Amino acid sequence: MDAERGRFIVFEGGEGSGKSTASLAVVQRLQAEGRPVLHTREPGGTPAGELVRGLLHQPLTPWAELFAFLAARAQLVATVIRPALDRGETVVCDRFAPSTFAYQVHARGLDPVVVRTANAAATGGLEPDLVVYLDIPPETGLARKHGEDEAIRTGLEDLEFHRKVREGYLLQARAAAARWTVIDAAFPPARVAELALAAVRTTLHG
Amino acid sequence: MDAERGRFIVFEGGEGSGKSTASLAVVQRLQAEGRPVLHTREPGGTPAGELVRGLLHQPLTPWAELFAFLAARAQLVATVIRPALDRGETVVCDRFAPSTFAYQVHARGLDPVVVRTANAAATGGLEPDLVVYLDIPPETGLARKHGEDEAIRTGLEDLEFHRKVREGYLLQARAAAARWTVIDAAFPPARVAELALAAVRTTLHG
Repeated sequence: MDAERGRFIVFEGGEGSGKSTASLAVVQRLQAEGRPVLHTREPGGTPAGELVRGLLHQPLTPWAELFAFLAARAQLVATVIRPALDRGETVVCDRFAPSTFAYQVHARGLDPVVVRTANAAATGGLEPDLVVYLDIPPETGLARKHGEDEAIRTGLEDLEFHRKVREGYLLQARAAAARWTVIDAAFPPARVAELALAAVRTTLHG
Repeated sequence: MDAERGRFIVFEGGEGSGKSTASLAVVQRLQAEGRPVLHTREPGGTPAGELVRGLLHQPLTPWAELFAFLAARAQLVATVIRPALDRGETVVCDRFAPSTFAYQVHARGLDPVVVRTANAAATGGLEPDLVVYLDIPPETGLARKHGEDEAIRTGLEDLEFHRKVREGYLLQARAAAARWTVIDAAFPPARVAELALAAVRTTLHG
């Protein structure tokens, strides 16, 4: 470990894409090699974030939902992510700003300019060094769907919504190809984890 | 009651200014006269808002605090305030956007352009028809201070902070003099309520 700033790796994907499984596998491999890695997730990770997570189980208007996520993000970045990066640790986060642009902007239709401005304030300008996006058709992902993390963002939203979410992710991946890696989440979990690990290693050693 | 849109009245003031007492007195008088009045407050008023209120008892970064308030505001406007105004009711709200500009922008120093943009998204452009501002020197107000509403926003903040808050309010009052009424909160509560009621009546009948 040196004084160099750590790398910030974000895992993204629609419901049932297996991003939590893949990120955990990657974190465990890196930690087993002796690398200091902090693993966190949105919107949790701080006491404030866990409260926001509770908030998101209620019906919220799209803007209320957006600002609740940004409150959690601002707190998570300032108190958890930045300090770890400053200590030279690698930070792996399940979901970050790309979720906001896929769900709240592309799928729900919130004004991208307003969201971009507010998000930049929440993150203090922090951007991921790498986004690992696990891509899956919504039909497949929703069939696989499991666990409460997903339920928070799905609710009664339908297939059409998730198609837009996926489209929102793919547009971002295309616009920032150098920092995104897109992995076919239809592969078996071990293969997905292997591909994700390879991408993360490239970022860590690049 | 007719189909005309109701008026939106906001009570503002620093800690210990007596705004809750004054707004309650005004609401009770109007209701006694048979006028339909909805009385609410920020950040509570919705189940989501009450959760945000819980959140604000924790130490938050300034941006996390801002976005938590905006989440509550977006939900309160969309689910409580707008529907009541559309039904032709008068809405009286303790604290609203002017608090954000006094506390988060003027006193804490958050970027006014970003906050203005985000706040407009949260409110959907809704602005008060009247802001009743109870003005008091922080020394006096803090000495009077009581109750949890105040504690939420004060915490360990000091006199200097509250001087900036007051300055932030007075700047807004000057910039929007036609829609603000400034009342000296050093008057006895009954006199403050009477002055507030007179200003509210002018707005309701204007």
